[in-house]
Amino acid sequence: MSTEEKVPDPEGAKPAAEEPPPPSKGPNLFTADVVLRGLLFASTVTAIVVLVTSNQTEETSVPGVPFPVPVEAKFNNSPAFVYFLVALSVACLYSIITALASISVVLKPDFSASFLLFFVLWDVVMLGIMASAIGTAGGVGYIALKGNSHVRWAKICHVYDKFCQHIGASVAVSFLAAFVLILLITLSIVSLHKKIPQ
Amino acid sequence: MSTEEKVPDPEGAKPAAEEPPPPSKGPNLFTADVVLRGLLFASTVTAIVVLVTSNQTEETSVPGVPFPVPVEAKFNNSPAFVYFLVALSVACLYSIITALASISVVLKPDFSASFLLFFVLWDVVMLGIMASAIGTAGGVGYIALKGNSHVRWAKICHVYDKFCQHIGASVAVSFLAAFVLILLITLSIVSLHKKIPQ
Repeated sequence: MSTEEKVPDPEGAKPAAEEPPPPSKGPNLFTADVVLRGLLFASTVTAIVVLVTSNQTEETSVPGVPFPVPVEAKFNNSPAFVYFLVALSVACLYSIITALASISVVLKPDFSASFLLFFVLWDVVMLGIMASAIGTAGGVGYIALKGNSHVRWAKICHVYDKFCQHIGASVAVSFLAAFVLILLITLSIVSLHKKIPQ
Repeated sequence: MSTEEKVPDPEGAKPAAEEPPPPSKGPNLFTADVVLRGLLFASTVTAIVVLVTSNQTEETSVPGVPFPVPVEAKFNNSPAFVYFLVALSVACLYSIITALASISVVLKPDFSASFLLFFVLWDVVMLGIMASAIGTAGGVGYIALKGNSHVRWAKICHVYDKFCQHIGASVAVSFLAAFVLILLITLSIVSLHKKIPQ
């Protein structure tokens, strides 16, 4: 009914044909951004909790002692896992700060392009930190699992099974965090690209 | 003199005022891109050469043998260093392919925006692979250097000094490669950002 009442407006039609359509996807983009940053927060917190609860005490034989004694496997006995924890903590803190910034852009979308650029560059740096920490923890965790007979580094996961399961689960959840960071970067880049006049 | 002869042209002035200035930085951007990709190639090739020439044979004591025997330290005895080599090789091959693609854009700059998007997404993935490989090699190399008394993993770098120096140098050069990847990503993102009409 209302479509028949429409009258063509020559003044209104001209700018619509010449100007490119305004980027109306700003709020949706930043809503997706906030959701992904929430997921980044959740995955890093999960990985941190799983990592710090990995300690396990088992009776093992120690050289010089004739009987097995309780020995605790702690993640902070390995510099690799300490670095992993630090990287996860930094990523967790970063996810909180950027989620709050992203929410502020959703509420007041004036500075979206600048925010987008600022976010994506830091997201790239954070991906580098997270990926290197996953590599470090994964590499040392693999030696704990399989050992290395060439240098006589004994495997420990057949004794400290719960410890190794926690380390493995923490690395797996961190993979999800790294994937979320790649998604965040892709989202920002594609939206920067779409705003270019073709 | 010639300025006085200029006659205002209403038809020519109108589109100049409405259209944004054409992105003239395309060729310069891609020239910098080609240079950085050349640097990526050089650094990955250097890291590969330094890594594969790390093998070292030393007289060491072996359990069950009463006298020292020659034992070779090889990088491919450790899955961590094999992964490191694979990641470096992939990054090296990637640098060749993308440098050729970037040169083709310099010669024929029609598809620069699409190339930029395609490049930057793969650069991000490549950064993730390189950073995780650096973390893996660095983590295992750190155990080789310092050992870990808690799990009785003995250090080996006091015996295999040349081997460890090569591993360390390869990791250091790979850091440069990762930094070049971050520069490439930054270059692409900033140029995507600058093309947005403000």
